[in-house]
Amino acid sequence: EVSTIDSKSSHRTHTFPGLVNVAAFIPGLALPNSKDFIEATRASIGAGFTTSIVIPQAQDNAIVDRATLEVAKANIQGSAYCNFALSLSATADNVQLFDEELIAEARALFIPFRIANKPIPLSAVAAHFSSWPAEKPIITDAKGSDLASLLLLASLHNRTIHVTDVQNADDILLISLSKAKSLKVTCDVSVYSLFFTQEQFPSATFLPSPEDQNALWTKLKMIDAFSVGSLPFKLASENGSPASGMEEALPLLLTAVIEGRLSLQDITIRLHDNPVQIFGLPEQAQTHVEVTLGRKARFGLRVSSCWSPLEQALVSGTIHRVIFHGQTSFLDGSLSPVPMGKDVSSATISHVPAVAVPTSAPSDNLAS
Amino acid sequence: EVSTIDSKSSHRTHTFPGLVNVAAFIPGLALPNSKDFIEATRASIGAGFTTSIVIPQAQDNAIVDRATLEVAKANIQGSAYCNFALSLSATADNVQLFDEELIAEARALFIPFRIANKPIPLSAVAAHFSSWPAEKPIITDAKGSDLASLLLLASLHNRTIHVTDVQNADDILLISLSKAKSLKVTCDVSVYSLFFTQEQFPSATFLPSPEDQNALWTKLKMIDAFSVGSLPFKLASENGSPASGMEEALPLLLTAVIEGRLSLQDITIRLHDNPVQIFGLPEQAQTHVEVTLGRKARFGLRVSSCWSPLEQALVSGTIHRVIFHGQTSFLDGSLSPVPMGKDVSSATISHVPAVAVPTSAPSDNLAS
Ligand SMILES: [Zn+2]
Ligand SMILES: [Zn+2]
Ligand SMILES: [Zn+2]
Ligand SMILES: [Zn+2]
Ligand SMILES: [Zn+2]
Ligand SMILES: [Zn+2]
Ligand SMILES: [Zn+2]
Ligand SMILES: [Zn+2]
Repeated sequence: EVSTIDSKSSHRTHTFPGLVNVAAFIPGLALPNSKDFIEATRASIGAGFTTSIVIPQAQDNAIVDRATLEVAKANIQGSAYCNFALSLSATADNVQLFDEELIAEARALFIPFRIANKPIPLSAVAAHFSSWPAEKPIITDAKGSDLASLLLLASLHNRTIHVTDVQNADDILLISLSKAKSLKVTCDVSVYSLFFTQEQFPSATFLPSPEDQNALWTKLKMIDAFSVGSLPFKLASENGSPASGMEEALPLLLTAVIEGRLSLQDITIRLHDNPVQIFGLPEQAQTHVEVTLGRKARFGLRVSSCWSPLEQALVSGTIHRVIFHGQTSFLDGSLSPVPMGKDVSSATISHVPAVAVPTSAPSDNLAS
Repeated sequence: EVSTIDSKSSHRTHTFPGLVNVAAFIPGLALPNSKDFIEATRASIGAGFTTSIVIPQAQDNAIVDRATLEVAKANIQGSAYCNFALSLSATADNVQLFDEELIAEARALFIPFRIANKPIPLSAVAAHFSSWPAEKPIITDAKGSDLASLLLLASLHNRTIHVTDVQNADDILLISLSKAKSLKVTCDVSVYSLFFTQEQFPSATFLPSPEDQNALWTKLKMIDAFSVGSLPFKLASENGSPASGMEEALPLLLTAVIEGRLSLQDITIRLHDNPVQIFGLPEQAQTHVEVTLGRKARFGLRVSSCWSPLEQALVSGTIHRVIFHGQTSFLDGSLSPVPMGKDVSSATISHVPAVAVPTSAPSDNLAS
């Protein structure tokens, strides 16, 4: 296990535990016979994310009941390259459809910001808060005053809530105030929100303004997790794929480490420790991500072939190897053909704060 | 003092304590040389409202700083027919303008729903919450998710908040949930919202839908106060005046008593007891409102001559006499020409729950 001091210029490699993407966006998630889910898990493992928490709200489709959950499960059946967890998405009228069995198969309840630009009526959201079991997380991507509504409901129902894809100064202020008053709120920021702005991509109004991005960096202590989310897919527009943004995440974050804006521990906390805690995920034994950092290289060596905002850019971090359940799943750009991911949707683990587990060094061969 | 049993058909007169309009809308409030403020207090006393809490957000003008407060005060100087209290309206950038002296002269801080259809930035609202003194009320007319934001901020700052002009089922639900969790929130409903709907006046989208109106009646227990507010002025459109809606309030409410939808105590609690408590108003000695009820009569005998939605309607309640500080201010349609109102903006009273005070019966002559 390599562990030289992070700030040393001699630092070349580092090993993370298996990382978690707390917001995996899969465009065709609940569309019958879509290969998107499989493609997303392939890109995920190659990017160092050994677990994906899937956003149940996809591109004009969503997991909202038994039928759509079964479609998503059929799409991935036996073919997942990383562990994954599925959730249910709230609608204005599906609270009665959530029976105990269905809830047991879901990792979390996702309350979307808006569906077709309309917020879910507050009474429906309140009904979901009342009936969703306390031990399972509630996630929302609500913004602005919709976020305030949800934080208020969470507070009134004494519920924890995880806010995904926080993007602006006002929202991070609300979350900071809520945390200061011991409201049980956690949040994640999309990696792209930390590195790309509307100013760089003027048509991408879904990216933060430079001021908002600055607020995210300033309030980094308030940010519990990093995610990939749906921004990379949106930014790629017609070139968007289920792999969009996955492979960019670690190189971007590692480059920020080299630039002194983040520490390696900042990454471990936000891509492993906190995600495992917040979502009650099972600890992945013998699962590690080995990275190389400090050597400038052109971004390009990629499993997926979708468009990237980093095309030809110089980055200071790359993924060398991913060990998944003791097997080498990814090595220097090549992926093992064996899908070894498991469905961890219904596993309920109550974690004590994470402790380091000693590991053996696996060989430099791909599992096959 | 008359006090036969309310439900008896023989009941003909009742005496209320001096009533409070917790939301007096005065169109030209802070416009130099406007007579609106005087006219509003004349209409108010004739309508049984011996105290007006003035909304500082008027028609394209507002009390937002020292200069605008002085304009409003100059408009009413020595000419108030009822007691009144002035407040300050929050803007995106006036928190620094509120010095101790200015705050001391204001009854409350009003946080408008939107100014020119834009909400005040959350960071500015949070700054107002942090700096406004805890013993002075905060009022808002925010709706929907803006209301949720304000309730959340109130909860996070552990502050009481009064929501004025509640109009729909979702908002009353939010307030009910907040009260159930002992958040310190109170609210009022405009009298017009209880009696008029969008269905009756299709162009009046500011009135509740029949469904929303029904929710207000169903949740009457959650409603701490009734108000006149700005709805009557809006409904009257070009015929709107500072008197709009004042004289209609009691006849509408008393007719509902006769119809069995309200009790006289429901009115006393919401137009006297709770307003005095919520806004810490000084108790008005020897101040009473004598009403006649149960006899159907055409609405029409009015101090003001503005348009009314009750024009020629049959109502079952009228105001017989208003006693103000021991003097008859209003008698059977005629108003005393003597302005006897006082500025109670800065009086700070901490009330114990109201107790009945014995009174002497004043003579049937107008003060002059
Ligand atoms: Zn290291
Ligand atoms: Zn782990
Ligand atoms: Zn290791
Ligand atoms: Zn190696
Ligand atoms: Zn009586
Ligand atoms: Zn009183
Ligand atoms: Zn009396
Ligand atoms: Zn009399």
